[in-house]
Amino acid sequence: MSHAFVPTHRTQVRRVAQRATYLRDDILGILDAGLVCHVGFVVDGHPFVIPTAYARIDDKLYLHGAVASRMLRAMRDGAPVCINVTLLDGLVLARSAFHHSMNYRSVVVVGTGIEVTEPAEKVAALRALVEHVSPGRWNQTRKPNRKELEATAVLRVPIEEASAKVRSGGPIDDAADYALPYWAGQIPLTLVRGEPIPD
Amino acid sequence: MSHAFVPTHRTQVRRVAQRATYLRDDILGILDAGLVCHVGFVVDGHPFVIPTAYARIDDKLYLHGAVASRMLRAMRDGAPVCINVTLLDGLVLARSAFHHSMNYRSVVVVGTGIEVTEPAEKVAALRALVEHVSPGRWNQTRKPNRKELEATAVLRVPIEEASAKVRSGGPIDDAADYALPYWAGQIPLTLVRGEPIPD
Repeated sequence: MSHAFVPTHRTQVRRVAQRATYLRDDILGILDAGLVCHVGFVVDGHPFVIPTAYARIDDKLYLHGAVASRMLRAMRDGAPVCINVTLLDGLVLARSAFHHSMNYRSVVVVGTGIEVTEPAEKVAALRALVEHVSPGRWNQTRKPNRKELEATAVLRVPIEEASAKVRSGGPIDDAADYALPYWAGQIPLTLVRGEPIPD
Repeated sequence: MSHAFVPTHRTQVRRVAQRATYLRDDILGILDAGLVCHVGFVVDGHPFVIPTAYARIDDKLYLHGAVASRMLRAMRDGAPVCINVTLLDGLVLARSAFHHSMNYRSVVVVGTGIEVTEPAEKVAALRALVEHVSPGRWNQTRKPNRKELEATAVLRVPIEEASAKVRSGGPIDDAADYALPYWAGQIPLTLVRGEPIPD
């Protein structure tokens, strides 16, 4: 049986709750399949949302950026953070405008970031960031030197308070609408990696 | 000459500022090319980030959802909102781990949402939402009835305070690293629409 996260007032899915999952395997699987997360944080009462790369090691998410970045400065101070990873799997075209939808896998992790200062963990996080987008790549690069490590801030967010929401399959129309002459179905969406372009 | 938005303390790009654009055409072009936005808002001091569909009419963004949704309830009350649309265009693999990057087009719109109650504007927004994902589709669907309109909340966010950040092209390594024997280049990423699957 897969371990599950306990839903909280911040992570419990309320709309279309049958699409929610709190299973650890589901949530980590979505995190591992994504490339970019959207990080939400609050500065002076205003919400900010910034897309950024991320990586996972065990039950920890890692973000990184320039030491001076607004996002990392805001989160370093222990401010609450909300991280969303969404994979878009398809468009769902129903017979009614109302039942149009999308297929997706989406994870929310909420918590507090902690700046990583221990050198070994910092390098492990940077390695995970490179390996996450291109497995095996770390050993095909020059590793970060001291100056680069000092210019980079790494933040750890524990994956403890998390939920996922998943929609798949075709449209669900009202019974009476199935007689309508409109085409209905799914249009799959896939993020495809093209031919590498050497530098 | 294209109209440009005036950068504010919330939209001015600070990190790698040469990748910023405030041109209206650039910003609207990215918004039109995306399918999902990430909406950030604050509830009781906590940031929330939710992925959702959106549409644009002129210089207005429209979001929609169930009348009872937390996102729409939070934003209806005039709370500040941050909307991000990110298109991921490629992975950038450099000779050094430090200079690994991604190619992307990303827009941030900040402002305040206003609930749309005028029926004609509400229907126009729902039409734009359907047409945004599948042009021409609105006339191939049953239009919303009164009950569906009443169950749906539509929110308008003016596109007034906005900026974009764009990265393209290959890796930029330190001069000394070009002699290293590691492969470097771009891996293009494209969101591909597959064969429609009829319901």
